[in-house]
Amino acid sequence: MTSDGSKKQHLVVFQPSGRQGYVPEGITLLDAARQLGVEIESICGGQQTCGKCKVVADYGDFSKYGITSSPEHISPPGGDERHYWEKRKRDPGDYRLSCAACVLGDLVVNVPEESQARKQIVRKSATVREIELDPAIRQYFVRVQAAELGDNRGDWERLQAALRDTHGLDNLRIDYYALRDLQKILRAGKWEVTVTVWNGQEVIRLQPGYQEGAYGFAVDVGTTTVAGHLVDLHSGQILATEAMMNPQTTYGEDLMSRISYGMMNPDGVDKMHAAIIDALSTLVKRATRAAHLHPEDVTELVLVGNTVMMALVLGIDPVELGGAPFALATHDAIDVKARDLGIRVHPGANVHILPAEAGHVGADNMGVVIAESPHVQEDIVLVVDIGTNAEILVGNREHLLSASSPTGPAFEGGEITHGMRAAPGAIEQVRIDRETLRPRFRVIGEPRWSDEMPDEEIQAAGICGSGMIDLIAELFAAGIIDASGKFITPNPSPNFRAGERVGEFVVATASQTSTGREIVVTQQDIRAIQFAKSALYTGAKLLMERRGVDKVDRVLLAGGFGAHIDKQRAMMMGLFPDCDLDQVYAVGNAAGDGAVLCLLSRERRQRAREIARWIDYVETAVEPDFQARFVDALGLPHNTDPFPHLQGLIPDRETIAAQAENRRQARRKSRRRRARVS
Amino acid sequence: MTSDGSKKQHLVVFQPSGRQGYVPEGITLLDAARQLGVEIESICGGQQTCGKCKVVADYGDFSKYGITSSPEHISPPGGDERHYWEKRKRDPGDYRLSCAACVLGDLVVNVPEESQARKQIVRKSATVREIELDPAIRQYFVRVQAAELGDNRGDWERLQAALRDTHGLDNLRIDYYALRDLQKILRAGKWEVTVTVWNGQEVIRLQPGYQEGAYGFAVDVGTTTVAGHLVDLHSGQILATEAMMNPQTTYGEDLMSRISYGMMNPDGVDKMHAAIIDALSTLVKRATRAAHLHPEDVTELVLVGNTVMMALVLGIDPVELGGAPFALATHDAIDVKARDLGIRVHPGANVHILPAEAGHVGADNMGVVIAESPHVQEDIVLVVDIGTNAEILVGNREHLLSASSPTGPAFEGGEITHGMRAAPGAIEQVRIDRETLRPRFRVIGEPRWSDEMPDEEIQAAGICGSGMIDLIAELFAAGIIDASGKFITPNPSPNFRAGERVGEFVVATASQTSTGREIVVTQQDIRAIQFAKSALYTGAKLLMERRGVDKVDRVLLAGGFGAHIDKQRAMMMGLFPDCDLDQVYAVGNAAGDGAVLCLLSRERRQRAREIARWIDYVETAVEPDFQARFVDALGLPHNTDPFPHLQGLIPDRETIAAQAENRRQARRKSRRRRARVS
Repeated sequence: MTSDGSKKQHLVVFQPSGRQGYVPEGITLLDAARQLGVEIESICGGQQTCGKCKVVADYGDFSKYGITSSPEHISPPGGDERHYWEKRKRDPGDYRLSCAACVLGDLVVNVPEESQARKQIVRKSATVREIELDPAIRQYFVRVQAAELGDNRGDWERLQAALRDTHGLDNLRIDYYALRDLQKILRAGKWEVTVTVWNGQEVIRLQPGYQEGAYGFAVDVGTTTVAGHLVDLHSGQILATEAMMNPQTTYGEDLMSRISYGMMNPDGVDKMHAAIIDALSTLVKRATRAAHLHPEDVTELVLVGNTVMMALVLGIDPVELGGAPFALATHDAIDVKARDLGIRVHPGANVHILPAEAGHVGADNMGVVIAESPHVQEDIVLVVDIGTNAEILVGNREHLLSASSPTGPAFEGGEITHGMRAAPGAIEQVRIDRETLRPRFRVIGEPRWSDEMPDEEIQAAGICGSGMIDLIAELFAAGIIDASGKFITPNPSPNFRAGERVGEFVVATASQTSTGREIVVTQQDIRAIQFAKSALYTGAKLLMERRGVDKVDRVLLAGGFGAHIDKQRAMMMGLFPDCDLDQVYAVGNAAGDGAVLCLLSRERRQRAREIARWIDYVETAVEPDFQARFVDALGLPHNTDPFPHLQGLIPDRETIAAQAENRRQARRKSRRRRARVS
Repeated sequence: MTSDGSKKQHLVVFQPSGRQGYVPEGITLLDAARQLGVEIESICGGQQTCGKCKVVADYGDFSKYGITSSPEHISPPGGDERHYWEKRKRDPGDYRLSCAACVLGDLVVNVPEESQARKQIVRKSATVREIELDPAIRQYFVRVQAAELGDNRGDWERLQAALRDTHGLDNLRIDYYALRDLQKILRAGKWEVTVTVWNGQEVIRLQPGYQEGAYGFAVDVGTTTVAGHLVDLHSGQILATEAMMNPQTTYGEDLMSRISYGMMNPDGVDKMHAAIIDALSTLVKRATRAAHLHPEDVTELVLVGNTVMMALVLGIDPVELGGAPFALATHDAIDVKARDLGIRVHPGANVHILPAEAGHVGADNMGVVIAESPHVQEDIVLVVDIGTNAEILVGNREHLLSASSPTGPAFEGGEITHGMRAAPGAIEQVRIDRETLRPRFRVIGEPRWSDEMPDEEIQAAGICGSGMIDLIAELFAAGIIDASGKFITPNPSPNFRAGERVGEFVVATASQTSTGREIVVTQQDIRAIQFAKSALYTGAKLLMERRGVDKVDRVLLAGGFGAHIDKQRAMMMGLFPDCDLDQVYAVGNAAGDGAVLCLLSRERRQRAREIARWIDYVETAVEPDFQARFVDALGLPHNTDPFPHLQGLIPDRETIAAQAENRRQARRKSRRRRARVS
């Protein structure tokens, strides 16, 4: 303890990013990393069991940082950690679990690539559609009559008079924090002041003199990724976009595990609430820094996200959303002061949360609707927003239906042996040579294919959801798996390896990866993707039936996953019902776009509240034949449905069998040839 | 530091109250006392200069508390404290300045009587006038339709429907904290819930099932004393009344010194804000405990106080109120969430602050107006509310004027050699025998006069404001001081002592006091009271002139001081203009009563806002002849004004001279007699 009662601080430098800063003594390296904006993977949430957060401390004199990093500056491993390493026959001396090791002095810490939780690449910034700018936040400049003896009005009454006379504003109230600083600011600006008014109702910010610039922050709070856009409310321009992992993943990968975490732990909801609030504050901080602004400059936030995420942002226990009848606290839009939630922006800032349609279709889906406007179109549109949960919309301006399908985390790399999020190093495209049956691939962040570059430069780290889609479609088209998703036996590909867990296919060799280990896809991995795609497909088909259509005019793929996907291969997988491929669009983070639009337009907010009540929500899980349809749809391509647009893309069984036979004979011949030569 | 990062705690027991509790290591005894609810005097605010906070540590084994108190458990005196004791030739070994000594271990500490800041006696509970009960807080019981599949409304929408159907309530909003707990509470009450609605607009509290009981807290935030009433909003009954010293006195005794403290210290305003907020929370805690309730049960607060106190409650820098043009932040009533201020009551509770008339006439005066209703009366009323500042009202339903007069702290015992607040042990009544010219007196908390009991039982601790009024009126009537307030020389009283500071009058002998030291009143003390009463009188006369009257029909004395005062002697002092003594009323803490009324009636709140704008505020200090009138009014009784109602009470100079001559001759005779005898 220092004399003023605060804890001692130590400099910690994280490599390879070089991020550094002072952290209080005694906190874990994982917490230190979070404080300094270094993202380290963690699944178990500090239970010292998953090992995803392992790091290596570097000891020695680091003159460039002006510190000495030594073994005494890190706490020795305790029982749990020692147990973890003993099980893996490793000495904790080189690797340490960052959730267990505590800072006792200055340190240099290496975060190995596999432990890095990288910032998701956002392929395109949210596109801003043409709208009339009418944000809830408006700024007004006024000259206020100076106080003088004999005028017994208060400064607020004088300011009200000026706003009325100059701008015709009436019936305004003033936020407590604005009132608190009113007198100082009026005098600092020599009775000239820039007033920020929320919704034509409330003065929420005062700045001395003439000031220009009102900023909002639109956030899509995903189960896995949180992405925010800093928006100039005067121009509608997006000034900065920042994304990070949802820190709640520590407490559970998907919605159900977070709901359970809240049920099993007395402070579980509070912890998850605090984690996401802190993440929102962090995103605002980064985005405002990038735009040379200050978090105080953000005076309005719009949030979208699924109903569980929105409940946790509000600190509401999501337990009711975990079981029938899936009751929401409210289906309506919510306005709440950012300070009541603890988000570090301007204290008078408001947080607007878009309305929900039902317990499973939340503000994120409303964001998609606001961005893509299926409710005003003539064409029948299918919108799928794929996250850990998939939201589906089918219909047009006459009748629009929505549903939610529990796809699980497979599309985001979860529950896949070498799965990972769509981040640099992830394999996102795969092609299998129809002759050699060997794969080539491309990783995110690298324009070249794996066969166009030296192995050691590839540095593949894993395979992301769109990579899995590509891979499975290719495995099928090449005849390595059959329409049920099973590896064909005997398998014709040299990259197939029988044995453990009914076989696996080697996508990348050890020399092509950053970890020095092969990247493989197992039968189980393929199965997980099949489950996910079938949930999606079945939901879409059910809604189409309800809507009375057997074909949609257009398919919109929303979400980060949709942006990375190969449309043709997704359809080969049977991810969505048949459609002209020209009419399949990846619309990016439409939920986030909707949030941006609601930041810029009060009319859109009002519209969202109306549409949310108008959309017809279908609880697909209670449909009597959902289960049977789901099982039916597991195959590739869906074997009960015509896919005219796939004509020629997917070989029939005979062709595959003939190709396999050809290859076998070719190999036999070559073997005989070699035998003869030897 | 303990392992969880918190500071070590030690048990500290304060004697004689026996209050005890654990406090963090390293804090001062003064802070420890405050944390444990032990009030220790302090004027300098921890500067180690006033010595009012001195205490004695008791060392030894205290088996009854299970601790050992030893000299190592208290920090040794530093330079400033040693200097303080050296100047006084005392060893800090027995006495210590509690603002300097820090807790290093378990301790038993004695607070000598003179260091105790005792809880002010509240003579009468706030009287509740007859009003129609219409509080801003209403409770409603409803049965809500249970959630079921197919009903996509949220719980809040279901609750709104129930409130509409059962009670006709519409357009309600819900406070964030209520929304947060809505789902749990609805289910805990099996879909029956008691809803607390504020102002017919906002749901602020939810309780499972049927619950009865809504409570408010009305507070008069005085410069010196803070008094709060816990009110049952259903019955209008006052359930408990609690008062304490305003902890801001640490930062300055009067308004100007607090304003300066805020100007001189960067965190001065924040400190004073935090101190009063903490005091409000403490009062609520004590009052709710007394009524077997919980602070969470308080869902509404009404505050009154002068403009500086209200600014500090809000965390507004009162600097503008320290100089012309005395600009308020707002003159209007204010509604702010208690949680925004940090007051520990129900998180949805609202704080209502009454409007102000002008920079110097604040919510406390509006409270007096609401309680005494001079604005509806035919008679011309003079209302004086005496605190550290005095507010004055003159007029009737046709025209009501207000002013503020800086009386200073003398009436509250400030700046008086042995002055103290109206607390047990304070001399509050004095009579001087017209023959012997010796005084007798009565202390608060003791029905007998000093000459009716043994000296050692009297235990006088000081003299309070009303005691000073009594004493000075008696000194004058007995011919010991003249009409200018000066001690007559040669002085006829055996209790007069010439010498230091132009003389002093012994009121209580050393054997009659709790400190073992005489209680005296000096020429300077008399002067301080004269200044205060002249400020009051001059302000009242000025308002009467403005109102066009030379006589008032009724005088109302508001405030704690007014309750203790002897009306006749106050008029002999010239505290207020001449009036029929039967028409002089002590109305108690009328400001607090007004706050209670506004807690019970929304109509009164609305009325207050209108009256505040209607009352004619007069800035007396800028009246051209104020200074001359003030000097004129210093004498006793006021020598330019007829006081017909004092006829016979005040002897004329001739009578006094004759009495003195008689006494001199009698003494001469007796001396001669003794000389002859010897």
